[in-house]
Amino acid sequence: MALQEQTVFPRPIELKNVSIKDDYWSPYVKLVRDTVIPYQWEALNDRVADAEPSHAIRNFRIAAGIEEGAFGGFFFQDTDLYKWLEAVGYALAAAPDADLERVADEAISLVAAAQQADGYLNTYFTVAEPGKRWTNLTDCHELYSAGHLIEAAVAYAGATGKKALLDVACRLADHIDATFGDRPGQIRGYDGHQEIELALVKLYEATGERRYLDLAGFFIDERGRQPSFFHQEWEARGRTSAWTPGVVQKTPPSLSYHQADKPVREQEVATGHAVRAMYMYAAMADLAVRSGDDSLLAACRRLWDNTVRKQMYVNGSIGSTHHGEAFTFDYDLPNDTNYSETCASIGLIMFAQRMLQNEVKGEYGDVLERALYNTVTAGMATDGKHFFYVNPMEVWPAASEGNPGKHHVKAVRQKWYGCACCPPNVARLLSSLGHYAFSAGEGTLYSHLHIGAEAKLTIAGRQVGVRMASGLPWAGQVGLTLAEAAGSGDFTLAVRVPAWSAHTSFTLNGEPATPEIRDGYAYLRRDWQAGDVFGMTLDMRPRRIYAAAEVRANAGRVALQRGPLVYCLEEADNGAPLAALAIRAGSELREVAGEGRLAGAILIETEGLRLEEPANAGGALYRSEPPTRTPSRIVAVPYTLWGNREPGEMQVWVREEP
Amino acid sequence: MALQEQTVFPRPIELKNVSIKDDYWSPYVKLVRDTVIPYQWEALNDRVADAEPSHAIRNFRIAAGIEEGAFGGFFFQDTDLYKWLEAVGYALAAAPDADLERVADEAISLVAAAQQADGYLNTYFTVAEPGKRWTNLTDCHELYSAGHLIEAAVAYAGATGKKALLDVACRLADHIDATFGDRPGQIRGYDGHQEIELALVKLYEATGERRYLDLAGFFIDERGRQPSFFHQEWEARGRTSAWTPGVVQKTPPSLSYHQADKPVREQEVATGHAVRAMYMYAAMADLAVRSGDDSLLAACRRLWDNTVRKQMYVNGSIGSTHHGEAFTFDYDLPNDTNYSETCASIGLIMFAQRMLQNEVKGEYGDVLERALYNTVTAGMATDGKHFFYVNPMEVWPAASEGNPGKHHVKAVRQKWYGCACCPPNVARLLSSLGHYAFSAGEGTLYSHLHIGAEAKLTIAGRQVGVRMASGLPWAGQVGLTLAEAAGSGDFTLAVRVPAWSAHTSFTLNGEPATPEIRDGYAYLRRDWQAGDVFGMTLDMRPRRIYAAAEVRANAGRVALQRGPLVYCLEEADNGAPLAALAIRAGSELREVAGEGRLAGAILIETEGLRLEEPANAGGALYRSEPPTRTPSRIVAVPYTLWGNREPGEMQVWVREEP
Repeated sequence: MALQEQTVFPRPIELKNVSIKDDYWSPYVKLVRDTVIPYQWEALNDRVADAEPSHAIRNFRIAAGIEEGAFGGFFFQDTDLYKWLEAVGYALAAAPDADLERVADEAISLVAAAQQADGYLNTYFTVAEPGKRWTNLTDCHELYSAGHLIEAAVAYAGATGKKALLDVACRLADHIDATFGDRPGQIRGYDGHQEIELALVKLYEATGERRYLDLAGFFIDERGRQPSFFHQEWEARGRTSAWTPGVVQKTPPSLSYHQADKPVREQEVATGHAVRAMYMYAAMADLAVRSGDDSLLAACRRLWDNTVRKQMYVNGSIGSTHHGEAFTFDYDLPNDTNYSETCASIGLIMFAQRMLQNEVKGEYGDVLERALYNTVTAGMATDGKHFFYVNPMEVWPAASEGNPGKHHVKAVRQKWYGCACCPPNVARLLSSLGHYAFSAGEGTLYSHLHIGAEAKLTIAGRQVGVRMASGLPWAGQVGLTLAEAAGSGDFTLAVRVPAWSAHTSFTLNGEPATPEIRDGYAYLRRDWQAGDVFGMTLDMRPRRIYAAAEVRANAGRVALQRGPLVYCLEEADNGAPLAALAIRAGSELREVAGEGRLAGAILIETEGLRLEEPANAGGALYRSEPPTRTPSRIVAVPYTLWGNREPGEMQVWVREEP
Repeated sequence: MALQEQTVFPRPIELKNVSIKDDYWSPYVKLVRDTVIPYQWEALNDRVADAEPSHAIRNFRIAAGIEEGAFGGFFFQDTDLYKWLEAVGYALAAAPDADLERVADEAISLVAAAQQADGYLNTYFTVAEPGKRWTNLTDCHELYSAGHLIEAAVAYAGATGKKALLDVACRLADHIDATFGDRPGQIRGYDGHQEIELALVKLYEATGERRYLDLAGFFIDERGRQPSFFHQEWEARGRTSAWTPGVVQKTPPSLSYHQADKPVREQEVATGHAVRAMYMYAAMADLAVRSGDDSLLAACRRLWDNTVRKQMYVNGSIGSTHHGEAFTFDYDLPNDTNYSETCASIGLIMFAQRMLQNEVKGEYGDVLERALYNTVTAGMATDGKHFFYVNPMEVWPAASEGNPGKHHVKAVRQKWYGCACCPPNVARLLSSLGHYAFSAGEGTLYSHLHIGAEAKLTIAGRQVGVRMASGLPWAGQVGLTLAEAAGSGDFTLAVRVPAWSAHTSFTLNGEPATPEIRDGYAYLRRDWQAGDVFGMTLDMRPRRIYAAAEVRANAGRVALQRGPLVYCLEEADNGAPLAALAIRAGSELREVAGEGRLAGAILIETEGLRLEEPANAGGALYRSEPPTRTPSRIVAVPYTLWGNREPGEMQVWVREEP
């Protein structure tokens, strides 16, 4: 099969043509396929004991007229199923599975059956409030739900070639296109939770229908215009919120919370709900690369810079407060009350991926890697059945229980949530890793993440097969082998050189090479032939990380990182309270092998000290005698593996003493 | 006039017989009299520009039928006026003021006019919900309001001898006594906000009516019995809360929040709303000393220990979270999100005062002093017109604005609050300082706070006049002079020896003396004669304070204290971010004179260092280069004076480096 060359800008390689084969990532991919997807199917059918019910399948059955009953769950509960179907699509692209496909096809029939004659599809409004369609976009997220349906449909069609769900999605998108717009009788508005925008770009790519791209542009361009759509809608429905029925509100919805306080091209700072912000920025980047709209790209760059240079945690997570799961302000990065939702890091990854289509710069890949290796994988337990929404930088389990301001900080991963956005989001990301690892276009094949894989593509008119081998995250050897390379002619291989690697060396077929280093990527252009190997060796020595002085929370503190992995201290290794520990400045950071549940991981061991109460303190709450400083061995474990042993304290940023 | 000797247990000296004459405290007393009381009268009449209206006087006028209109403010808005009247009572006890007394008498007439024929008095239920009396004690605080009326009445009668308000209070108390109890037809319940209990003890003392003491005991004994009164009441009103009208709640009111999860004698740990807890503990101590109930005293001791040894901030404040203005759990003392309400420290002072009636121990006086000198006075600006509810240990003004979890932490004192509990509470405490400074009984005169004053009392059958002179909080000389001492016969003078004084010396008439030191008090018994002087010199050297290792928030941190005053760093002296600063362990703590708005205060200066970003950091959010450590002079100011200059950062607990 002749592959279609992807030109104009670097695009991800089609999932069907990428096969992940990686010591570190393949177990995750397998976990998603063998455990997460089946487990979530059980959850969607309310068959997980002791977990909050999803209601999702049941809602569709009721909407389809197959079952009697009342709607259950949130307004946007349908997305549980859509995200699962999207993950299934990606999984099937990687490897066929007739049983799984049959289950999915049945679910798709159910979705189709729940669609209304005019294309409308949303079980909440069909079952619970039939007359209230499109009257509360601020709260009820109908377009958000539609977006997830579209993403699922595109993924499933791409994997299986089956169009049933894509047809449902197009009918819904057509209905939306007719309903929304600036023509008389149309709703000139947009959703409270962005998602439809990036989904419509995918639908455009899958169908070639320019209308869908234009509709995405409409939603982005409308957003933030005055007078505010959200405020008009609020007035029209009697100043109420769907979250507090019957209560007349004194203040209208916050516009900055919804990234709607000003037109997107004028936005300077990441505000509001972090996931919604990221989904919007990703769509903006999608539109910028396809439209060549410089003002949109400039806004993307500003919002990117603000996000990752002022408001991002060292684990690649965002959202400093659980109040609205939101950004707060520059350099406000408290460690013990952060939200850092798993989904927000997935959104940041999507944004980074789109920015890499606009311009290939190392920072995008660095952040993508940071969020993926630390927050996203930390969001899921190694059993694939327990999940974190919140990814704290510091945990004191007693405070999670006993201080209401920290109730959102869980010390133990949970089985399933009523608002189950994170687990299926992790599943769909991990089953589409290939979309993030590589891209190709304009005669260049990029490796962004250096994940072991085999890929096929057409580049510079040549059909090429490459094999990426990688020791990451434990070892720094990376090798990109040309497994097949029909014909001849120059093209470029480009590998990201992570900013964390202090010294990086390159080889071509085993000999030292000097690729061009530009914006954090190493480029080597030549007439690549089968058997050629482009190698890179990264500096994996553990290193210290310090935060900017403006970050009050981290003054006098240090974090540890090795390769892409951020480390943390756990009570299991270091005792409690962790706050009593300090790392000695300049102490040697030694690598030690993890054991038990951490077998296979490299831990970091170093010299530190423990503050202890003087003998005469007598248990006083306050005293004049200074603490004693006792030398103490300190052990740090990869953050992504925290919370897989006995529950206890955890801390990323550790005090450092000279 | 022959003064009545106070026997059985040490009681405060009547306010009329104590005259505060103190370089430090007299200006506060004068500020309350000349500024706070008149300002609050304006506030009660809704005449303070740009401040939230109180509605208090207007509500009484409406309830009395003098004015038409709707009730305004909270259910317990009456207490604004009652607390003001109480403060006026204390002020008039200290010095007559015909104009003020006339204004107060008019207000009292208004209160009397609003009282119902059966003795009931509460403007909310009279004006807004006439049929709903006593149906929601959990939320609406009718008994709390009644308690503040009683306290005002006792104070006003004690100062002026006028009984009009006391008669109103007795009629209301009689009505309550008839309404509540365990006889058929009575309500077997208690209030959501404790206050009536300690007020009824005062009413018993003022009237000699044993019924009032018994009614206080009933409320204390009933509290926490199962089945829960609050839950029964909640069911009876249809599972609603007065705070969210029309909403049927899923969960009943929290019992631990209301200190009603178990009978008070079984309570081990301070829980729930901190002010309510303190008012209850004070009443329990009141009842314990009058009843000799050992199980009640044991509970008081346990709850005291838990409060001050596990849950108290170093400034004598309590309430670790703004969620419910409440306690959290042992050793959870976050510095940047604490509530530490001014009123809660006033409640702690009341509790300490009552414990000193049960047993004279230094810890009670130490805590009383800590809360008074630090939190209570910090709660009011030096102009007497701006107030803090919340007394933070750390302020980053940008976070107070930009992080919703810190919105309660104000960087600037506010003019007046809709729920204006703190300003009048500060006023009534500062105008009754004499009640806390001294007590006498069983042949001993105690000085708890060493506040300059003249007092008259009868002790061991002798009429005595004493004059306390004190350099506190700036200088450590304290002298108790017998100004008059009719007749002869032994009695004891006892002065608290503050735990913060590392070396304390004593004199009798200028010669070294060796009083008996017992439980933190120095006792000297003799046949005191006019002209005798008992002197004490306290160690005023600045000292370091360290918190117990269990307090995670203060690991590696130090606080500074000098005499009774806790210190803090302010941006005005040290620049921002304060988090970049550390004090050198073992550095000399030098005293320097305050200037400008801090003139008259002693500041502390010491050597420290400032973490600065290395030259090559380039503004990165995260970097590998360690910060540089630049020597830096550090200046600390008394916490009580913070926030009286330009708004900026503030920090009590400062990093310490070896």
